[in-house]
Amino acid sequence: MEFVQIGRVETPFETPDEAPRQGCEDPHAGNVRIDERFRDALRGLAHGDRVVVVWVADRADRSVLRVRDGERGVFDTRSPARPNPICITECEVLAVDEEDGTVAVKGVDMADGSPVLDLKRALD
Amino acid sequence: MEFVQIGRVETPFETPDEAPRQGCEDPHAGNVRIDERFRDALRGLAHGDRVVVVWVADRADRSVLRVRDGERGVFDTRSPARPNPICITECEVLAVDEEDGTVAVKGVDMADGSPVLDLKRALD
Repeated sequence: MEFVQIGRVETPFETPDEAPRQGCEDPHAGNVRIDERFRDALRGLAHGDRVVVVWVADRADRSVLRVRDGERGVFDTRSPARPNPICITECEVLAVDEEDGTVAVKGVDMADGSPVLDLKRALD
Repeated sequence: MEFVQIGRVETPFETPDEAPRQGCEDPHAGNVRIDERFRDALRGLAHGDRVVVVWVADRADRSVLRVRDGERGVFDTRSPARPNPICITECEVLAVDEEDGTVAVKGVDMADGSPVLDLKRALD
């Protein structure tokens, strides 16, 4: 199935190994940079909102089905290694610049430069 | 970006219009049917676990950037209409048949037959 990259993240983590395990537990700030043709979709998003960032662990191994010496299936984990390394991180919005396509967020756990597929409002 | 369908959902909702807005608020049961080559990744998943089902609203309009008379960007909503209609539903696992590739779940909000991209453990 084909999807389009809508932007990428800017974070303090140069590699996946440097990134924390879960964004919500960590206060690191970063940016989501939205490509020009998708910036109209940012309207309404504002400081204090909680958003789900749907991003791709593009350096993950997609051939892995089991981890921990083959004892555990990847569908029973949150490991980025999996057939479709689509990751979900709930973040807090710090600021939105719709014209520039920049969403400053808190709670990032992505490696710098990771592709973004979607932003959506978090459930309350 | 290219991703592979790992399975599909079976739900009581024939069309997207029939499906409830959010799975977590609704007790409907359904199945996630995992394709044979990905079933090894189910190991460990069991009754009572909470999983995130990452699925595709394959009948959604991908050209929509604004809703509500153009007032609201889709990144500020959870509408399935968006550039990449990748949806996220947290469900409770009722039963897992690893051999058959069936995960019975509670809390479905997908239209029947929607493609599935990933299952992952929910955050506690």
